[in-house]
Amino acid sequence: MAIADANNLQQYCIDVAGRAREASRELAGVSGEVKNAWLAESARRLREQEAQILAANEHDLAAAPGYGLSGAAVDRLRLSTERIDAIAVGLEQVAALADPVGEVIESSVRPNGLEVLKVRVPLGVIFFIYESRPNVTADAAALCVKSGNAVILRGGKEAAHSSRAIVETLAAVAVEVGLPADAVQLVETTDREAVGHFLSLSQYIDLAIPRGGESLIRRVAAEAKMPVIKHFSGNCHVYVDADADLEMAQRIVVNSKCQRMGVCNAAESLLVHANVASELLPKLGADLARRGIEIRGDARTRELVDAASEASDEDYRTEYLGPTISVKVVGTLDEAIQHIASYGSQHTESIVTNSLNAAREFVARVDSSAVMINASTRFNDGFEFGLGAEIGISTDKFHARGPCGLKELTSYKYVVYGTGQVRE
Amino acid sequence: MAIADANNLQQYCIDVAGRAREASRELAGVSGEVKNAWLAESARRLREQEAQILAANEHDLAAAPGYGLSGAAVDRLRLSTERIDAIAVGLEQVAALADPVGEVIESSVRPNGLEVLKVRVPLGVIFFIYESRPNVTADAAALCVKSGNAVILRGGKEAAHSSRAIVETLAAVAVEVGLPADAVQLVETTDREAVGHFLSLSQYIDLAIPRGGESLIRRVAAEAKMPVIKHFSGNCHVYVDADADLEMAQRIVVNSKCQRMGVCNAAESLLVHANVASELLPKLGADLARRGIEIRGDARTRELVDAASEASDEDYRTEYLGPTISVKVVGTLDEAIQHIASYGSQHTESIVTNSLNAAREFVARVDSSAVMINASTRFNDGFEFGLGAEIGISTDKFHARGPCGLKELTSYKYVVYGTGQVRE
Repeated sequence: MAIADANNLQQYCIDVAGRAREASRELAGVSGEVKNAWLAESARRLREQEAQILAANEHDLAAAPGYGLSGAAVDRLRLSTERIDAIAVGLEQVAALADPVGEVIESSVRPNGLEVLKVRVPLGVIFFIYESRPNVTADAAALCVKSGNAVILRGGKEAAHSSRAIVETLAAVAVEVGLPADAVQLVETTDREAVGHFLSLSQYIDLAIPRGGESLIRRVAAEAKMPVIKHFSGNCHVYVDADADLEMAQRIVVNSKCQRMGVCNAAESLLVHANVASELLPKLGADLARRGIEIRGDARTRELVDAASEASDEDYRTEYLGPTISVKVVGTLDEAIQHIASYGSQHTESIVTNSLNAAREFVARVDSSAVMINASTRFNDGFEFGLGAEIGISTDKFHARGPCGLKELTSYKYVVYGTGQVRE
Repeated sequence: MAIADANNLQQYCIDVAGRAREASRELAGVSGEVKNAWLAESARRLREQEAQILAANEHDLAAAPGYGLSGAAVDRLRLSTERIDAIAVGLEQVAALADPVGEVIESSVRPNGLEVLKVRVPLGVIFFIYESRPNVTADAAALCVKSGNAVILRGGKEAAHSSRAIVETLAAVAVEVGLPADAVQLVETTDREAVGHFLSLSQYIDLAIPRGGESLIRRVAAEAKMPVIKHFSGNCHVYVDADADLEMAQRIVVNSKCQRMGVCNAAESLLVHANVASELLPKLGADLARRGIEIRGDARTRELVDAASEASDEDYRTEYLGPTISVKVVGTLDEAIQHIASYGSQHTESIVTNSLNAAREFVARVDSSAVMINASTRFNDGFEFGLGAEIGISTDKFHARGPCGLKELTSYKYVVYGTGQVRE
């Protein structure tokens, strides 16, 4: 859509947000049955309308060179029969999750007979800003609406046609099953100014969720007048304790680093207790090197691992998201914990140990969204934790921490039943 | 304390916040026993040091005319044996509350054997900005530290000496019982610029809580780079349904409006179903008028209540915090709900009804922090809900809504116990 001038753009954003607010009021009272019917029928319809969606995707693919997209980015943009089916399966999985709305989280009967219930309710309107993967369009819409929220989707221009085709299907089905028409809206302009307008509309929008590179997230966090669920970097550590099963340690380090390298819960740094360094590091270093991982370590690491180069202070701060790992030999558990406090990003840390005391101290003192004992860092994930699909992993401590599923998209209210009580 | 120049002031704020961050790391691992010992011994010591605290309070009272404080404000500032005892009792009450830290909120065992625990942890560092009541100094410190957080207290200059005397006692006891010395810090300057510096230090401070007038809260919300628990206005409604016990309705309206008028959960607006208006309003209007309440109503209200004057649109938006109430006669429950959505502040709304359907619809559609059925709005309060002491009532929907007690000052982390699991 062409937005003629700056005033029209602002008015467009206000209109979209205002309609979302209206829709959210209606959505809060919609039954789980209707929301699930929407998800199931949308899944069916996406498969049925495969041809139209692939045609829209062809438009985006044709434009991709003009946007300077790399081969990997073009691959992420590309849809296929299998990928459309995967999107539909994602909707069906969200339908299978319990409806969070209306859950009584806590309750008590007060001495004066008042019944106080704390009841889960939707947040209201969510503004979701993301980059160019068309499947995210459907995932985000499903999670927001299932949790009773209206959603405003602002996708990357690179996937504009694909996202529009998907949202048109979701919105058409919404009306058919009895959801408000504006439960799911796609921002129909790629103008960057629009994001700024939406981020100022805190009277209509209750939460902003940016998903993409760190610069996007920082921009949204700086500009937003409403709360933001942020996902900053994951500089995740594995610490191998003095009292560790070293075969388990090797397996966990290799999995944490190598199983998928471009993701936030992959390990970027290894800390090894001095007592086990000479036994563990030569073997583990060779294993990692064989898998193409570059090892950057302190002096002791370089004595023990032939392939290791020198780690700078900056290395210990870096989320590589690729085939590099920083390594440090530490004298004590306390030193490991201090290192993590100084260099970590509070995302995911793992200890490998057989010592109950070491495990308990690590758990108590490491302030990360997930602390693992004898398990790969890669498990910090909504599916792996049993939350169902996730909309992101929060690196904040306020409202939501770690994987954000349906519950993290809700608030609560107190509902109080009385029989005429007044306060003395 | 005199802060020589702007650079020194900024450095002072950074030092205070940095020390609070260090203290918070230690505090997160302190047992409930030690925190309770601090509260109990602080209570004892405040009573013992009554003479010194009253002397400090005399300094503040002597300076009060210079700050232009009104009689009511001077009364709120004044301490006495009874009021110091009440502060001490408040600390003892917080000691009696369960320690929220370490609570396992949820847990599951995954199919692969991973044990996933969601464990309550402190937020970290709280910056608390409040006006001139000395008792708030002790209350806020108690709640923040009991929930495992370090606190930076910024009180009003009018109570500077009293607050310092209280904090010196709390801090001295902290060191004696084994809490970090910087668990509780008072900002030792009344320079307004200091607030701005603290609000920028999101690397050290996890949460800001302003308590005071709306302009203070708006300033903090606008400037803070960290999350804020806000408490905006309470434009609370009582709706008397067509199917209501009218004696109960009268009792609830009178209590909601008159029991304490200057507080956020007092009723400011009354909505009456047309079917019962002619029976209820003449009697209720006379009752309110006899209690000195000014009634501003729509045309129908003015027909039924002699003393009523005309209500403007602005009246329906106003939180009077005093002896005035706006009244409107509505044709339907839906009209009442729409009115509340348009004019309310999402704080506290009450319905008086015998109809299950009306109660359920009101609860489902009114989006307020507390929705009461057949009870006074005045019950929206941490003590009344059984949360124990509260640090405020949040009008936000993110993280904390309604009364904020100990749990609302916490976050959580995932703790995952494995036996060597890696991700396939």
